[in-house]
Amino acid sequence: MIEAGIIGGAGYTGLELIRLLVQHPQVNISIVTSRRYKGKKVSDVNPHLFPFIELEYEDVDTNEITDRSDIVFVAVPHGSAMEYVPALMERGARVIDLSADYRLNRAVYERVYKREHTDKEERDAVYGLTELHPEVADATLVANPGCYPTGAILAVAPMVKSGLVRQVVFDAKSGISGAGAEPSENSHFPNLAENIIPYQVTAHRHVAEMRQELRVKVSFTPHVIPSIRGILTTAHVFLNEHSSKTHEEIEAIYTQFYADKRFIRLRNGLSSLSAVRGTNFCDIGFEIEAESDRIVVISTIDNLVKGGSGQAIQNMNVMFGLDEAEGLWFPGLVP
Amino acid sequence: MIEAGIIGGAGYTGLELIRLLVQHPQVNISIVTSRRYKGKKVSDVNPHLFPFIELEYEDVDTNEITDRSDIVFVAVPHGSAMEYVPALMERGARVIDLSADYRLNRAVYERVYKREHTDKEERDAVYGLTELHPEVADATLVANPGCYPTGAILAVAPMVKSGLVRQVVFDAKSGISGAGAEPSENSHFPNLAENIIPYQVTAHRHVAEMRQELRVKVSFTPHVIPSIRGILTTAHVFLNEHSSKTHEEIEAIYTQFYADKRFIRLRNGLSSLSAVRGTNFCDIGFEIEAESDRIVVISTIDNLVKGGSGQAIQNMNVMFGLDEAEGLWFPGLVP
Amino acid sequence: MIEAGIIGGAGYTGLELIRLLVQHPQVNISIVTSRRYKGKKVSDVNPHLFPFIELEYEDVDTNEITDRSDIVFVAVPHGSAMEYVPALMERGARVIDLSADYRLNRAVYERVYKREHTDKEERDAVYGLTELHPEVADATLVANPGCYPTGAILAVAPMVKSGLVRQVVFDAKSGISGAGAEPSENSHFPNLAENIIPYQVTAHRHVAEMRQELRVKVSFTPHVIPSIRGILTTAHVFLNEHSSKTHEEIEAIYTQFYADKRFIRLRNGLSSLSAVRGTNFCDIGFEIEAESDRIVVISTIDNLVKGGSGQAIQNMNVMFGLDEAEGLWFPGLVP
Amino acid sequence: MIEAGIIGGAGYTGLELIRLLVQHPQVNISIVTSRRYKGKKVSDVNPHLFPFIELEYEDVDTNEITDRSDIVFVAVPHGSAMEYVPALMERGARVIDLSADYRLNRAVYERVYKREHTDKEERDAVYGLTELHPEVADATLVANPGCYPTGAILAVAPMVKSGLVRQVVFDAKSGISGAGAEPSENSHFPNLAENIIPYQVTAHRHVAEMRQELRVKVSFTPHVIPSIRGILTTAHVFLNEHSSKTHEEIEAIYTQFYADKRFIRLRNGLSSLSAVRGTNFCDIGFEIEAESDRIVVISTIDNLVKGGSGQAIQNMNVMFGLDEAEGLWFPGLVP
Repeated sequence: MIEAGIIGGAGYTGLELIRLLVQHPQVNISIVTSRRYKGKKVSDVNPHLFPFIELEYEDVDTNEITDRSDIVFVAVPHGSAMEYVPALMERGARVIDLSADYRLNRAVYERVYKREHTDKEERDAVYGLTELHPEVADATLVANPGCYPTGAILAVAPMVKSGLVRQVVFDAKSGISGAGAEPSENSHFPNLAENIIPYQVTAHRHVAEMRQELRVKVSFTPHVIPSIRGILTTAHVFLNEHSSKTHEEIEAIYTQFYADKRFIRLRNGLSSLSAVRGTNFCDIGFEIEAESDRIVVISTIDNLVKGGSGQAIQNMNVMFGLDEAEGLWFPGLVP
Repeated sequence: MIEAGIIGGAGYTGLELIRLLVQHPQVNISIVTSRRYKGKKVSDVNPHLFPFIELEYEDVDTNEITDRSDIVFVAVPHGSAMEYVPALMERGARVIDLSADYRLNRAVYERVYKREHTDKEERDAVYGLTELHPEVADATLVANPGCYPTGAILAVAPMVKSGLVRQVVFDAKSGISGAGAEPSENSHFPNLAENIIPYQVTAHRHVAEMRQELRVKVSFTPHVIPSIRGILTTAHVFLNEHSSKTHEEIEAIYTQFYADKRFIRLRNGLSSLSAVRGTNFCDIGFEIEAESDRIVVISTIDNLVKGGSGQAIQNMNVMFGLDEAEGLWFPGLVP
Repeated sequence: MIEAGIIGGAGYTGLELIRLLVQHPQVNISIVTSRRYKGKKVSDVNPHLFPFIELEYEDVDTNEITDRSDIVFVAVPHGSAMEYVPALMERGARVIDLSADYRLNRAVYERVYKREHTDKEERDAVYGLTELHPEVADATLVANPGCYPTGAILAVAPMVKSGLVRQVVFDAKSGISGAGAEPSENSHFPNLAENIIPYQVTAHRHVAEMRQELRVKVSFTPHVIPSIRGILTTAHVFLNEHSSKTHEEIEAIYTQFYADKRFIRLRNGLSSLSAVRGTNFCDIGFEIEAESDRIVVISTIDNLVKGGSGQAIQNMNVMFGLDEAEGLWFPGLVP
Repeated sequence: MIEAGIIGGAGYTGLELIRLLVQHPQVNISIVTSRRYKGKKVSDVNPHLFPFIELEYEDVDTNEITDRSDIVFVAVPHGSAMEYVPALMERGARVIDLSADYRLNRAVYERVYKREHTDKEERDAVYGLTELHPEVADATLVANPGCYPTGAILAVAPMVKSGLVRQVVFDAKSGISGAGAEPSENSHFPNLAENIIPYQVTAHRHVAEMRQELRVKVSFTPHVIPSIRGILTTAHVFLNEHSSKTHEEIEAIYTQFYADKRFIRLRNGLSSLSAVRGTNFCDIGFEIEAESDRIVVISTIDNLVKGGSGQAIQNMNVMFGLDEAEGLWFPGLVP
């Protein structure tokens, strides 16, 4: 059994790790930390987890965490993760960081997140978009991707890597769970119900990850929708001149690119959120505009699973030589 | 492996059986019927099930179904089930009927459902509320309970069976998936969103099951709420004179009654729908009104799982001598 | 023109007063107070009110408020209202208090709200359920009813006042706007969506108003539903022995009781929330259980209008000798 | 009083006309037709309209309609409107057609709607986007714009008419009421809740209106969101080379273009749907992407009001020399 520690087990990311790991046949959760709930049983604070986890929340130092864990999931906000990761790695732990702290190179990070990166070591973290980065297998530190970049990059990578693409506009629609467990103006039911809220429409930080991975001209505009889970990304893809392709050609590019990628499901029609609810799948469909250089690609993920904790577990599986789908292989909650 | 056949695999009940059975380690789905979708792949019609089921929908006679199945789930509307069950049983199949056709005795059935019961045999079906009917283990025909009766009966059975109860008013609130996969006035989004719709407030047919099982004075009033899944039952329980009990005494009654019942979770506070989403749990909590003979019990279930297909599988597990939780033991989808 | 002042103009109650009063042909809003937003334009803080109100939020003393107003609406939380009302009344203002502070007699108030009532004067406030209290016309202080009591009392008053009723169980379902504009656990979208949350199921404070007005045995259990506005009250009414009535008899009782009450609409079927959305109507329907002493009455209101600010304006209309429907006579927002 | 007839008064468009016209001080609804509900009282079929309209649905010929009406609103599906309009106009009626039948020139219409246009007369209908077409004042036939084109065109017209724009991608999100009152797969609550559904992402017919009015390169991708009302349009605007503008310059362009347009509200921040709920407003905000040729404009409307029946009434007001806001001047339903 792999002993897994979770730093920050009271937010949505941490709770989703627990929800999924208690079903994982090769994993035992060894420790879950939370300053706020220290000493309380995890399943008292979160009744849906009863009786799947016996542990109490703890508040211990990184030494004790590494002593008790083969893998450590860091599920704290960006800016906090960099306080834990150096000590964890010095003790030889393998680490999957679900924050933004190790996704970008230092200079880009400091510019985008407007703060100093206090970890002075070069860590060579692997960007944990499992389908694109097989080197996850050998990583000691995985930087788990942001939720929006996961849906966006997977939607267009096959065409971009084939050199077809001039420019992409990602117009993304996210369930509100992406904003976290803490009540806020946007998550206040009377504000969000019967509404859709655009925010940071030209300057959301996640665009930096998209640009780093795709290396074409990228724009990104997010919205929150009155749903709990899910991100639907509408990718407006503009092809290079002379790149005109038929539906069959584009389909072939995707099929080949994602061959053997079990969590990518290419759809005949357009995907929507329900089929991926609660799962680690990314569903992708597309439509070519007639007499135009535009292709519309629709991708859907569950932001807390493929866009977060599920992908982290997928990365763990790869790091430990397991089937990448171990503990993650079940259909979505439809209806 | 248990070979499981599903008659009526295109409605919500049938689809939920498939969603759950593809995760069941001891079961292979051998056949799924649908007249409407005959010849189409189940996962083409229902993309969330890709690639978990390879089968096509078929339209074959009961002989072939029993030849290929150890257990047959009948997931067609009431009135239709009685057309299949006699032939299935004559061929020696074990059957779990998810319709209402075998839940009540013939006379009550014909009065409540206002139709003739065409199966002239006395079948001795066991009412498949697993927690109350251990005789499910030996049954060849299980009548799987209605969704509302499941939540209602489980909420109050301990007190009723202890002789404390004079009268119960069940005020139930259901997600709209209970009304089925077919679009209707009540399921039309602009009618249900921002609304709650009471219906059949004094004369819903499910009250007959509640009365049969509880044998006290029962009233029942259902509503549909703007949610997909779940039934929250507010049971207004009126105690017999001289039955005054403390919180601890009531708690003890429930704890003892449901000892070893793994899918019943007694809650310190009041339950709500999220913790049971997608699961086979029934969560129960209660509050005693001061200076009154009223106790309010709140129970929550997922109408499609514990209130339908999950309970059917739980019954199958018991019939085949498996752990009752096999294939059903996972936490709810929170948030 | 009636000059109307609003104390507490930034919460949902205050904002709803503004939304309605800017459409009222006989009213000019003279002042709106808010400590938090002092100096800001009301329509900058609340863009939906642009350009209907030019005022800035102010923070002034009660003297200035009464100098500039013919009527003062007090829209602050209970406990705070009693800090304003005495000074307002000493200056001769007519006051409509939307908090709970003047709805109950002192002894009941202090027991139910668990706090001292600091206004030592006996104010003889009129309970502002306009349909039942014509003496509103002569009141100088109106205690505007709670949202739940409005829907509950109107649902059963005709039968109760006719002496038919032994006991009532009110099972109420409210939109979350009743919990106010401040984000909270219950209003957090991922907690409320796909859910229904029971709370204070045996001991909600509003039951005191119901008992004061109805004077029969009353129980009350509230829930919040995933809707913004509206309260649907399911009244389980138990008749006295020998009170058996036909549908026509009950209908006649309601029709006569509410003759000339323009905001009460008796429905042939059961009411739901959509038809009253945004309006001051209370829709009422009922169904008699066969062979039983139970009648189920369904009433629906918009909690912020008839259950709050609309009823306050209806009271103002009556106090000033206007048509009670002035400024409130428009159909609901359907769909 | 203006006598107003409504052809097709049972769909959402017709009902919204009634909801608004009963509040209009200068209008009397003279006739409402519906084949399906002929002979039934409008307020029996639609309880929210009680007691605001006394009429019964009728099924009469166009002669009688024109005899009894000064203005006729045609609120039937495209393809049907062209069966009524010629006869109405021959009788001298002034007509506002809410269908698509007179919005495009014949050739474009026949290509886009894939049907013959059976009205052989050239009617010179005015495209009734009131803010852009003052010639509505003199029109006898107004083609009321589609819901999506209304939000899209208003969002970008100032920049486009100033010659700044090279290309626009409209990514629109609509409440489901735009799909009509008839239950369908997309409007089925379990399909739409917790979801967002893209459809016709490269080939929606409404793009033809946008191109006709804007005359720049336009792409359009619609989605339905789990809301009843509202369209939020995210316009990704790409400027011509050398068109770089500051925030203040763009703001000035909008302010000047929409001077005196009372239903256009320019917002400092980004608009969302709640502020326009139930109203005839179009709220517009924008953000300029740094170091880019992209500007994101967000516009919001209520699809049934400014995107349909409200705009039709605004056009009627202009046609009859009334204040354009008559009967339409009230704030949105917030929360």
